[in-house]
Amino acid sequence: MKLIGSGEFQIIDYLKKRSGSAPGLIRGIGDDCAVTTIASGEVLLTTTDLLIEDIHFKQQWTELAVLGRKAVSVNVSDLAAMGAEPRFLFLSLAIPDCFELTSLDQLLTGFLAACADYGAVLAGGDTCRSASGLTLSVTAQGVAPESGWIGRDGAHENEGIYLTGTVGDSALALNQLQSGEVPDQALLQRHNDPIARVAVGRALAKAGIPTAMIDISDGLLGDLEHILVASDVGAAIELENLPLSPGFERELKRDSALLDLALTGGEDYELLFTAPKAFAESITVLSGETGVPIQKIGSISKKRSEITLYGPSGEYKLPAKTGYKHFPEST
Amino acid sequence: MKLIGSGEFQIIDYLKKRSGSAPGLIRGIGDDCAVTTIASGEVLLTTTDLLIEDIHFKQQWTELAVLGRKAVSVNVSDLAAMGAEPRFLFLSLAIPDCFELTSLDQLLTGFLAACADYGAVLAGGDTCRSASGLTLSVTAQGVAPESGWIGRDGAHENEGIYLTGTVGDSALALNQLQSGEVPDQALLQRHNDPIARVAVGRALAKAGIPTAMIDISDGLLGDLEHILVASDVGAAIELENLPLSPGFERELKRDSALLDLALTGGEDYELLFTAPKAFAESITVLSGETGVPIQKIGSISKKRSEITLYGPSGEYKLPAKTGYKHFPEST
Repeated sequence: MKLIGSGEFQIIDYLKKRSGSAPGLIRGIGDDCAVTTIASGEVLLTTTDLLIEDIHFKQQWTELAVLGRKAVSVNVSDLAAMGAEPRFLFLSLAIPDCFELTSLDQLLTGFLAACADYGAVLAGGDTCRSASGLTLSVTAQGVAPESGWIGRDGAHENEGIYLTGTVGDSALALNQLQSGEVPDQALLQRHNDPIARVAVGRALAKAGIPTAMIDISDGLLGDLEHILVASDVGAAIELENLPLSPGFERELKRDSALLDLALTGGEDYELLFTAPKAFAESITVLSGETGVPIQKIGSISKKRSEITLYGPSGEYKLPAKTGYKHFPEST
Repeated sequence: MKLIGSGEFQIIDYLKKRSGSAPGLIRGIGDDCAVTTIASGEVLLTTTDLLIEDIHFKQQWTELAVLGRKAVSVNVSDLAAMGAEPRFLFLSLAIPDCFELTSLDQLLTGFLAACADYGAVLAGGDTCRSASGLTLSVTAQGVAPESGWIGRDGAHENEGIYLTGTVGDSALALNQLQSGEVPDQALLQRHNDPIARVAVGRALAKAGIPTAMIDISDGLLGDLEHILVASDVGAAIELENLPLSPGFERELKRDSALLDLALTGGEDYELLFTAPKAFAESITVLSGETGVPIQKIGSISKKRSEITLYGPSGEYKLPAKTGYKHFPEST
């Protein structure tokens, strides 16, 4: 059954029935606006991300339920990067005429399941026809204590630079898909179904550990650069400490140039943060408690916005391209 | 100059420089999330709308600065419909490769000017490439007193049904554009550059007048139906009281079938509300104070979700299509 014939308001009703309730949600889907509240002493954090067919995803490379999950995770990851707790999601969908109702159901099932996993609810959105492919525009709202959220601008000289999980897997999977190879399951999952690091982000913020934090969406070096520019500092990275997955290590042995992909490939959705060296032990403990590996990969220097990479045999040449840019610079 | 060559982060920097600050905005553009706060005793209202090229607009029918304004107004109109005060806007843009930097500048100039007009600021967003046309996804946040916002679900039997401004102008202009005619300036402006009824919406809510309120985006009857369904009541509309502009009246004299367009055409962005009849005098006073015409067009009946139209010669046949639907029902 095509969506033409089902009616926009039926889609809204369907979503309303499936979206559930949550603390702080006074009015959800079905009015002009969602009405929400936050507790006294809390601040609201809001982020928004577009996912556009043939720019951010291809339907032949992912299942729609998984795409629905990813649309939530990439937004919630921005909340995690500031130490926030996810609360309310807004989903706008531009839907091609050929889209089946069963496909919409799959997409929404994944979306709503991911909301539930992160403790958030769908609170509103918009639906309309698309003149071309499928477009998802998601806005996520979360909360954090007034003085308990982490920006990008607090890094200082001599602090350690830390990274959760591993980097490069998502970009490697995408590279393989683009060259017609079939990525192994673990790599593909990192690309199609990333998990936002909410629990570890909140635990770090609660413990007052990070001075600056960001999630890796544009690539490790590109996102590190955002912290450096905002904090007006530089960074020295020790490549030997770069956390890589077994799947990535295996491919790296075949092609050492892939190291640049771990440094610049986007969509890892890991957290990158800086912290005073005195917290090294607390970070190890917190990593154990949350079950999320956290690796020290370098230190903050005073060289304004400058990144220096060190390999086993000395300084390593900075890749020309430091992260994914939608509108690449000419230089 | 094309955007390819300017860099995504330069666009973000450009927006950051132009976006300004506002009460409650703790961190705006340039971090993972915007960080905002609302006052104690206030609730947050959030709405989101997509504007997609060739679905919602055509570049040859509007200037980009005006399109930027409209993207703000259609979102802010949803805040107005609940009696809220606009605060923070989020703009996600999917930009075609051929888009010029000067075009982006025009679009953003209009967007930011409209934000300022409504007392709101741009607090965040996303930019990426588009595989097809220009897409704008806007999220607007506003605030209202905890017990001072107006939903769709409070209408009761015997209450009056009121409408601000005039209806049908936007749909008439669109009809004319679609048939290759040049609409007169006043009609075209209603379509391209609608004004959200923020001041009158807030004044009505503050005075505790509306029991239910909505903005007319899908068409008068379609949006009235939303109030009726949410409130579980019916409506009787007196067509002689339908407020029409001089431009619309002129065309209606040539073609009486256009009356259906005033009833079902979308994008008027006027406020439709219900209020106990005891407020009739207060509404007249408030209309005078805000300078916005408010017309009583009918009454709420107990006939669940049913709309009856009365013309000069008795009952008038309900148009088959009651409002704009992106995915029309088959029946």
